Amino acid sequence: LRTGIPEAVFAEGKDDAELLKIIKSSSNNGIIVTRLTNKRYQQMEEGINQVLTPNMAIEYNQKARILVIRTQEVKKIGKIGLITAGTSDIPVAEETRIVAEESGCEVLKSYDVGVAGIHRLFSQIRLMLDADVEVIVVVAGMEGALPSVVAGLVDVPVVGVPTSVGYGVGEGGFTALYAMLQSCAPGIAVVNIDNGFGAAIFASKIIKSRKRS
Amino acid sequence: LRTGIPEAVFAEGKDDAELLKIIKSSSNNGIIVTRLTNKRYQQMEEGINQVLTPNMAIEYNQKARILVIRTQEVKKIGKIGLITAGTSDIPVAEETRIVAEESGCEVLKSYDVGVAGIHRLFSQIRLMLDADVEVIVVVAGMEGALPSVVAGLVDVPVVGVPTSVGYGVGEGGFTALYAMLQSCAPGIAVVNIDNGFGAAIFASKIIKSRKRS
Amino acid sequence: LRTGIPEAVFAEGKDDAELLKIIKSSSNNGIIVTRLTNKRYQQMEEGINQVLTPNMAIEYNQKARILVIRTQEVKKIGKIGLITAGTSDIPVAEETRIVAEESGCEVLKSYDVGVAGIHRLFSQIRLMLDADVEVIVVVAGMEGALPSVVAGLVDVPVVGVPTSVGYGVGEGGFTALYAMLQSCAPGIAVVNIDNGFGAAIFASKIIKSRKRS
Amino acid sequence: LRTGIPEAVFAEGKDDAELLKIIKSSSNNGIIVTRLTNKRYQQMEEGINQVLTPNMAIEYNQKARILVIRTQEVKKIGKIGLITAGTSDIPVAEETRIVAEESGCEVLKSYDVGVAGIHRLFSQIRLMLDADVEVIVVVAGMEGALPSVVAGLVDVPVVGVPTSVGYGVGEGGFTALYAMLQSCAPGIAVVNIDNGFGAAIFASKIIKSRKRS
Amino acid sequence: LRTGIPEAVFAEGKDDAELLKIIKSSSNNGIIVTRLTNKRYQQMEEGINQVLTPNMAIEYNQKARILVIRTQEVKKIGKIGLITAGTSDIPVAEETRIVAEESGCEVLKSYDVGVAGIHRLFSQIRLMLDADVEVIVVVAGMEGALPSVVAGLVDVPVVGVPTSVGYGVGEGGFTALYAMLQSCAPGIAVVNIDNGFGAAIFASKIIKSRKRS
Amino acid sequence: LRTGIPEAVFAEGKDDAELLKIIKSSSNNGIIVTRLTNKRYQQMEEGINQVLTPNMAIEYNQKARILVIRTQEVKKIGKIGLITAGTSDIPVAEETRIVAEESGCEVLKSYDVGVAGIHRLFSQIRLMLDADVEVIVVVAGMEGALPSVVAGLVDVPVVGVPTSVGYGVGEGGFTALYAMLQSCAPGIAVVNIDNGFGAAIFASKIIKSRKRS
Amino acid sequence: LRTGIPEAVFAEGKDDAELLKIIKSSSNNGIIVTRLTNKRYQQMEEGINQVLTPNMAIEYNQKARILVIRTQEVKKIGKIGLITAGTSDIPVAEETRIVAEESGCEVLKSYDVGVAGIHRLFSQIRLMLDADVEVIVVVAGMEGALPSVVAGLVDVPVVGVPTSVGYGVGEGGFTALYAMLQSCAPGIAVVNIDNGFGAAIFASKIIKSRKRS
Amino acid sequence: LRTGIPEAVFAEGKDDAELLKIIKSSSNNGIIVTRLTNKRYQQMEEGINQVLTPNMAIEYNQKARILVIRTQEVKKIGKIGLITAGTSDIPVAEETRIVAEESGCEVLKSYDVGVAGIHRLFSQIRLMLDADVEVIVVVAGMEGALPSVVAGLVDVPVVGVPTSVGYGVGEGGFTALYAMLQSCAPGIAVVNIDNGFGAAIFASKIIKSRKRS
Ligand SMILES: Nc1ncnc2c1ncn2[C@@H]1O[C@H](COP(=O)(O)O)[C@@H](O)[C@H]1O
Ligand SMILES: Nc1ncnc2c1ncn2[C@@H]1O[C@H](COP(=O)(O)O)[C@@H](O)[C@H]1O
Ligand SMILES: Nc1ncnc2c1ncn2[C@@H]1O[C@H](COP(=O)(O)O)[C@@H](O)[C@H]1O
Ligand SMILES: Nc1ncnc2c1ncn2[C@@H]1O[C@H](COP(=O)(O)O)[C@@H](O)[C@H]1O
Ligand SMILES: [Mg+2]
Ligand SMILES: [Mg+2]
Ligand SMILES: [Mg+2]
Ligand SMILES: [Mg+2]
Ligand SMILES: [Mg+2]
Ligand SMILES: [Mg+2]
Ligand SMILES: [Mg+2]
Ligand SMILES: [Mg+2]
Repeated sequence: LRTGIPEAVFAEGKDDAELLKIIKSSSNNGIIVTRLTNKRYQQMEEGINQVLTPNMAIEYNQKARILVIRTQEVKKIGKIGLITAGTSDIPVAEETRIVAEESGCEVLKSYDVGVAGIHRLFSQIRLMLDADVEVIVVVAGMEGALPSVVAGLVDVPVVGVPTSVGYGVGEGGFTALYAMLQSCAPGIAVVNIDNGFGAAIFASKIIKSRKRS
Repeated sequence: LRTGIPEAVFAEGKDDAELLKIIKSSSNNGIIVTRLTNKRYQQMEEGINQVLTPNMAIEYNQKARILVIRTQEVKKIGKIGLITAGTSDIPVAEETRIVAEESGCEVLKSYDVGVAGIHRLFSQIRLMLDADVEVIVVVAGMEGALPSVVAGLVDVPVVGVPTSVGYGVGEGGFTALYAMLQSCAPGIAVVNIDNGFGAAIFASKIIKSRKRS
Repeated sequence: LRTGIPEAVFAEGKDDAELLKIIKSSSNNGIIVTRLTNKRYQQMEEGINQVLTPNMAIEYNQKARILVIRTQEVKKIGKIGLITAGTSDIPVAEETRIVAEESGCEVLKSYDVGVAGIHRLFSQIRLMLDADVEVIVVVAGMEGALPSVVAGLVDVPVVGVPTSVGYGVGEGGFTALYAMLQSCAPGIAVVNIDNGFGAAIFASKIIKSRKRS
Repeated sequence: LRTGIPEAVFAEGKDDAELLKIIKSSSNNGIIVTRLTNKRYQQMEEGINQVLTPNMAIEYNQKARILVIRTQEVKKIGKIGLITAGTSDIPVAEETRIVAEESGCEVLKSYDVGVAGIHRLFSQIRLMLDADVEVIVVVAGMEGALPSVVAGLVDVPVVGVPTSVGYGVGEGGFTALYAMLQSCAPGIAVVNIDNGFGAAIFASKIIKSRKRS
Repeated sequence: LRTGIPEAVFAEGKDDAELLKIIKSSSNNGIIVTRLTNKRYQQMEEGINQVLTPNMAIEYNQKARILVIRTQEVKKIGKIGLITAGTSDIPVAEETRIVAEESGCEVLKSYDVGVAGIHRLFSQIRLMLDADVEVIVVVAGMEGALPSVVAGLVDVPVVGVPTSVGYGVGEGGFTALYAMLQSCAPGIAVVNIDNGFGAAIFASKIIKSRKRS
Repeated sequence: LRTGIPEAVFAEGKDDAELLKIIKSSSNNGIIVTRLTNKRYQQMEEGINQVLTPNMAIEYNQKARILVIRTQEVKKIGKIGLITAGTSDIPVAEETRIVAEESGCEVLKSYDVGVAGIHRLFSQIRLMLDADVEVIVVVAGMEGALPSVVAGLVDVPVVGVPTSVGYGVGEGGFTALYAMLQSCAPGIAVVNIDNGFGAAIFASKIIKSRKRS
Repeated sequence: LRTGIPEAVFAEGKDDAELLKIIKSSSNNGIIVTRLTNKRYQQMEEGINQVLTPNMAIEYNQKARILVIRTQEVKKIGKIGLITAGTSDIPVAEETRIVAEESGCEVLKSYDVGVAGIHRLFSQIRLMLDADVEVIVVVAGMEGALPSVVAGLVDVPVVGVPTSVGYGVGEGGFTALYAMLQSCAPGIAVVNIDNGFGAAIFASKIIKSRKRS
Repeated sequence: LRTGIPEAVFAEGKDDAELLKIIKSSSNNGIIVTRLTNKRYQQMEEGINQVLTPNMAIEYNQKARILVIRTQEVKKIGKIGLITAGTSDIPVAEETRIVAEESGCEVLKSYDVGVAGIHRLFSQIRLMLDADVEVIVVVAGMEGALPSVVAGLVDVPVVGVPTSVGYGVGEGGFTALYAMLQSCAPGIAVVNIDNGFGAAIFASKIIKSRKRS
């Protein structure tokens, strides 16, 4: 069983040849390709299959725009919670989910539980705490209020992921980012806008750090 | 009994002579001087007293930095709710309270009920709704999440007042402003950062508009 | 007759499957789909028709990019005024009109009456006031001066809707937004850039709030 | 009689010694020192008097923060209009007035005629046009709507001077600047925020340009 | 012969039907349609021809993206200079040229004379001054230094038109705009980024203002 | 022995009376007052002493601007590392140290080890890892590169604290904040600019979360 | 052998006719066309070939988007180092490489050696210093930390080229630009975002400046 | 004779004790303290004298806000040119001059030669080139056009130093910075706003780099 964070490559800004070369030279632990659109994946699928070795299994997730090339099972290391405010935040959250799972985390997810239906939020968080998640990742765009509310309800650390969902003053995700950074509920740390990948790595480092001691 | 919105003057950016001249020429309905610091009021007190006529009563509020010069009682026209997220938002809220009262509103206030102690917030809002407030003004700095939460709980219109309380990315109040504008709970409209005055005028216009029909 | 604000869903950022699922599970009061482009509506039309139940009537407005799925007539609750500065602000205003009407408001509209032809503006506002509108929604891009002018002429509350119409320093609508927030005519509150939906909900809450008392 | 634009020096960012040296070496046409606070003028008064030659007359204006050192009368070359929206815009307007007068312009001024009292504005503009002003300088902070309104009423060119009067989103004067640049009434050109000096020079160049042909 | 500024309509943000309706109802003086791309003009050409009356002549300029519908010759009122820093600024300058000509200005143009070849600039400006231009319009993107240099060389007023030519920190044209506003050479006023239209109207108002007196 | 995060109050934006009232009503676990300048502490010292009860010990740290009012010893729960890039980052780091210690963390600190002396940085990090810290807090202003470098060297999660140390483009701390968010080394999460307090709470939540399972 | 910096033209913002005209009139030293996309080059290839004279050799580089039209060999004048942090920075670096080579520089390049694999970076820099490069150009996007690290290791001047590689807060390249400007390692100067061309010219001027003395 | 760049410490953000400690532990090459205001220097003078050793000479420059503690003469390594646009840019330029001289550069300075008096600029640059300067540092605020003009006239590399001199849109120095980065004259690289120190170090590295080969 493999342990540890997988190698990853960011597809945007690289041309197909560069991407194939990186995949080909990836280590025995496999590799994760993020921000790979479905259209591009279709185009490259044949090329990718040619550079794969027999021990590699391949899995593409269109919503999360992620391609996972896996060589061995991953050892489970602990649990994280994963929440989105809206439906539109799901692609970013799915990036978190897949990367966290490839890093060995069991992910308890609950999507589209924004502050509107606050009672549904309460019960979902209860389930996560009962399952002993060690960190909760909260993905939200618009006014980015959800991490503040969650952090006011739990003792585990909360990792906020602002998304670029929104328009007008919310375009680009800065409102959500700033709101999370400026939260009056302490115990929140934040990653870059739409950085579902980074949140997953950070969350799994929290869990790994615990396992070590 | 007087009805209607009182004349008002913004003290910043005017020198003492200009201010005194405006006060002197104010109408029979009296005048409200906003953004008048305590220090400045002390300096001008004597001069102001000299331009007052016998029918004028004077009241200075240091926290709200407001001077009210009143000539007659104001007729009550209806009720508004007034909420602040934190202690630091109180000066802006007090500006709202005094201006709204001078416009004939009865103000039910509840200060420092941010999202942290959400149950206290619930009971305060209950009290306001039971008293039939027709609009709730919510004053908040930092991440500005409170109006979203309130608007999710009530049917009356919510007027958000972002404050410049905060530091780092929150400095200047833009995070709070943008969060309120971008709220996923509809039914919120917003005034300028720290504009307690404008929120009071807007809220009393809502009530006056009703009285007319 | 139905009363109350209809359920609404924001189409951008959701894929077709998600949208259909939401429409299907919408309540008996029907649902409004906003920001649904004509092209996308054409693609989804068949799918939408399949999930409709017999009691549902469907109406799509291309200019406003809104799809209304209605189950019963809406009860009229009061009147609002609706003004745009230019021709380019009409799509946002139409979003306001449709959502306000679905919320029970009678909408007196007057489009393309910017500050240039100020006398035409005067007469339009006179008509609205004579008809006893309780709030006026003013939609404007560019330098966003119109709400200031209107608020200087009327006693009813004015809701400003900045639009992203403009270029150079006006691109994105921030100039219009800031001008409205910074208006020297008090009695204006503002919603997000291009948020015709939010203005409609806020305006109808003002009217509903009156009906209650 | 002197004609032509006077030499000018910007006092901020220069120490007293540098300023005195520049004044001393100024040409026979005299010199204008802008942005010289009253406090600083008091400190430097003695020093300045010592470097003056007998043919120089000195005039300090505290509101405009300008020191004029004049050697001869200025020849009148034409008329400009000068309008401010509020009381707080007066210091910037006074900078314009003094520099324009030193450049030979007759200045018809009308202060504090913002969009609120629009009929007073109408009559003031009428007076200016009847007096054959060739350009109107409009000084305004806050939402900066006044130049748009004026430009909609007159045929002469309008020069907008945004001021840093305002708070919240209006702080620093960018809202006023952008609103003027983005005006839907064509025929406006704009100078830097608080740049009363530049507006005066530009306006007098318009008039001088005419005299030449 | 016609005198006076022609009616104009901004094509962006209006759909074809709206545009045709405006053209149809345009006055006897004809109309100018700005920001009409070539592609769109081709699509609308037939429709436009149908709404034209026999006395109307039509002229489309692809570079300037302008359609002129003219009913009578324009009377010449005076001369303006028109300069661009680079080749990429030409489309904006051509918008200025056509609108200024339709307003009765004779335009002396000199394109692509940026600060690099400063001696060519000198001789071009000499030609313009010798021809008695009354105002010079300078169109520049990138660092926007050209108006400062020109204003240091001439006595006539200079109107700066920043363009959105540039990349990195120059993207959108703000660097050019701010540089012009902040110029240490006085006598420059500025219009919005890419606003060739506004510069033309402003320049012709300067000339018309002269003619009146 | 007390466990758990102490109550805390942010002194800025509250007047002395409000602060004393909050201290007085603080729970049996004591209270931490942050952002209390030395000058203000001196003024309030007497008043604070009067509201203290006998079981309370008081400790003021001038560098960190923190007042700790403690009622019982804190139980140690684990270790964190704490690094600053420069000398000027120390006040923010000291805020982290004191709050983390009051939350039960043992803090291994290493100040002024910026990227310049990279070998000293290596040895300090070695010491921390050997001591089994579970999280490293990195405080840095200017270009904010240190967290990236540290995250490239360790497996434990890194919490970045940008500081407002810097000038020019670095003023306000946004460069440091954005650099940390944008880090190409994954495994970093970030708190608000100068928010030493928030980093401490977040880090101790990581450790507490471990203790629970 | 030719010496000196070649003439260059920026293709964006010019239409094909303008570009061909410039190429045709280029001097005997040849010309470099930058920012010429492959697609556009294909379209123009025939036209370009027609305007070429027999002594001209043509070379197009797709990655760098550069077309070189050369008339004679370039004389070698010295060596520069060229480093990129990531794969996505290569197009900008290739622009630097080609322009520097056309200016007579020998370029020692080392791509994709970001701070992650710091030992590989060390050895690459060693090679460059051993080869006596006189300046090192460092191209980096994201958090832009690489120039700081390099400048801490070498005595030669470092020229930073921020790239627009990144997303969220890093979008547009401002984070990288500001980080380089704000570097705590002195000895770095910076060019515009994505300005590989400017870095090449600047670096070759450094070398030429040496040759002269 | 000493060669090489001196140790330097940035006084802002460090308290007096920290500063003294750093000075005390400075190496045998002496130390430069930058951003030390006159007022602060007076306060610390006694303390500094006490930590000095007999071989140390001390020199304080008030305009540049720099304290130089020197232990040995510096060996001359080459010449640089140093130009400011205005009088207000002199403090930043003096920081450059002193640090460059302490690094072994001979500095040919020419202050207050902005684009206005372009002929004086020409003759000053001629003098510098005749003296064989190897790099020219140009310090400018406001619209920052001077480096572009200089770079168009010389073959040596130009280092631009934007200053925070200016107001309105120029406040903070960003206009000058962006204009320099965006210059259409290639061969300019830029340091942070007001960073006279960095420009000096960079310029002397250019010269040192030459000496090495
Ligand atoms: N055009 C719109 N602008 C702003 N908010 C909207 C719009 N349309 C719908 N909404 C709000 O967004 C909520 C739905 O968000 P979602 O679940 O993402 O569809 C609705 O309950 C509305 O309150
Ligand atoms: N208040 C002002 N605002 C803008 N520019 C000014 C002002 N006063 C003087 N100037 C201009 O700045 C130049 C002087 O700059 P300086 O040499 O720095 O004093 C003068 O020639 C004027 O053109
Ligand atoms: N290219 C342009 N840039 C700026 N303003 C324009 C332009 N073209 C037309 N306008 C102005 O915009 C007004 C028309 O606005 P609209 O009614 O939206 O077409 C005209 O009266 C002109 O004053
Ligand atoms: N005025 C200045 N501007 C920019 N960097 C400076 C300045 N003065 C000193 N430095 C740099 O900052 C470093 C010292 O930072 P510190 O350890 O915080 O004093 C020195 O090694 C210099 O490289
Ligand atoms: Mg939802
Ligand atoms: Mg509180
Ligand atoms: Mg219109
Ligand atoms: Mg007024
Ligand atoms: Mg050119
Ligand atoms: Mg240090
Ligand atoms: Mg890489
Ligand atoms: Mg000067």
